[in-house]
Amino acid sequence: MTTQIGILIVGNEILDGLVLDTNSHWIINQLKALKLQVKQKMTVRDEVPEIARSLRRLLTNGSNLIFTTGGLGPTHDDKTLLGVANAFGLPLELNDDALKIVTRQYADLHDRGVIESKEITKARRKMAILPKGAKPLDNRVGGAPGVLLDIEGTQIISLPGVPGELMWIFDNQLLSLLKVRVEGAFAEDVIYLPLRDESTLAPIIDEVMQDVPGVYIKSMVKPYGESGIRLWVSSSGQSQAEVEERVNRVANLLVKRCEEQFSE
Amino acid sequence: MTTQIGILIVGNEILDGLVLDTNSHWIINQLKALKLQVKQKMTVRDEVPEIARSLRRLLTNGSNLIFTTGGLGPTHDDKTLLGVANAFGLPLELNDDALKIVTRQYADLHDRGVIESKEITKARRKMAILPKGAKPLDNRVGGAPGVLLDIEGTQIISLPGVPGELMWIFDNQLLSLLKVRVEGAFAEDVIYLPLRDESTLAPIIDEVMQDVPGVYIKSMVKPYGESGIRLWVSSSGQSQAEVEERVNRVANLLVKRCEEQFSE
Repeated sequence: MTTQIGILIVGNEILDGLVLDTNSHWIINQLKALKLQVKQKMTVRDEVPEIARSLRRLLTNGSNLIFTTGGLGPTHDDKTLLGVANAFGLPLELNDDALKIVTRQYADLHDRGVIESKEITKARRKMAILPKGAKPLDNRVGGAPGVLLDIEGTQIISLPGVPGELMWIFDNQLLSLLKVRVEGAFAEDVIYLPLRDESTLAPIIDEVMQDVPGVYIKSMVKPYGESGIRLWVSSSGQSQAEVEERVNRVANLLVKRCEEQFSE
Repeated sequence: MTTQIGILIVGNEILDGLVLDTNSHWIINQLKALKLQVKQKMTVRDEVPEIARSLRRLLTNGSNLIFTTGGLGPTHDDKTLLGVANAFGLPLELNDDALKIVTRQYADLHDRGVIESKEITKARRKMAILPKGAKPLDNRVGGAPGVLLDIEGTQIISLPGVPGELMWIFDNQLLSLLKVRVEGAFAEDVIYLPLRDESTLAPIIDEVMQDVPGVYIKSMVKPYGESGIRLWVSSSGQSQAEVEERVNRVANLLVKRCEEQFSE
């Protein structure tokens, strides 16, 4: 089964412009290093029906691996797991393994003098209440465990919104799980062209894409204030040697055709 | 009719991690200054069915003002208007006003020595082909006009992905259109608390939210590496004096309750 990935970003702070979402960009680049491509992202408010609807929408659209970010903490506005449970019609229940993580984390933070009390209050206990059948993912940075829910091969991975916690869980708890999903080969290259006008490139790109099937060419105007155009060439397939050769061939072809065209 | 806003970000470069989307964050903050709140964001690849499906999903979910960013340029991968046309079952046709903008822009860029030729090639002409009934929004920075489509009070506003062009169109072409949609009053405040543990705050927040209805309190751990917690307090309603008073009251209450709790 091909892996189709969706990311659901949960948080009013994103949609109210208080926080710029960089978590999903980071996740995308980690997945890319594993040759896994993200199909779609959604960002919703801290509302259970919205979270549940968006999860269902990502599933309907073919995602079989979904990351959620944010909404796992101790406060009333942390509703991601309610949304996940709702989307799959699952009850929520106290998970013993999750409670062990939460308990260990607050004891550790207390021992290090970071917090006053290590008592497992109702708010802290909330972070160990998971959808039935889900497994906690250890978090050694903050208090909220990540959560993995596997339903007939479709995996929902919920990560906290605090970047340091999200990154720790991804790097330490998810790599072996994700490597199983890696298939096929992928290669890419970025070419910089000292041109100022994307429209003159359009026919050249069309021509090269017709001549070499199986590549994708994306033209991107350089960041605001700089001139020039970046062309991103990528290809995926079964053999690494084959996709690399294809990308190199297209990169050379593009540079050559542009030189011909603009030296006329 | 209450304004419900959705943002659709179009572009493989975002989902492949080459570009960090900051456009939607910028739009959200501009809208916030106008007291307009964004309900949902989606990010999809440069694929017509994906763009069309996501637009329909935003509409189904109640959006009556939708911004799209990216995918208006001259190259094959710029497919946003195809997606918009497809979502509403509209044909695409050459728009004379849009063609005037494109023609003027390339003449201007040519006169300023930025580009070699001002000829309206097929690739440039593509940017003037709009869904039937849509109106172009002038762009004095780049070649691609923005596009406004109004269907029975639901507006789809398509903006280019290049930040400087998007910002110019927003600031110069959209403010009067958006101001019509502003309703009611909105106030917000951010309080910084020198606490290290979000979970001890949870019961205080719950208590204050019960005591003062009509406010939203969002707790946010401070950026990675810093300690402390930010509480964002916001309220919307009909009277500006009323929502401001409510936000002030809650901010004071939160600080007071925290002082009481943590001085014990």
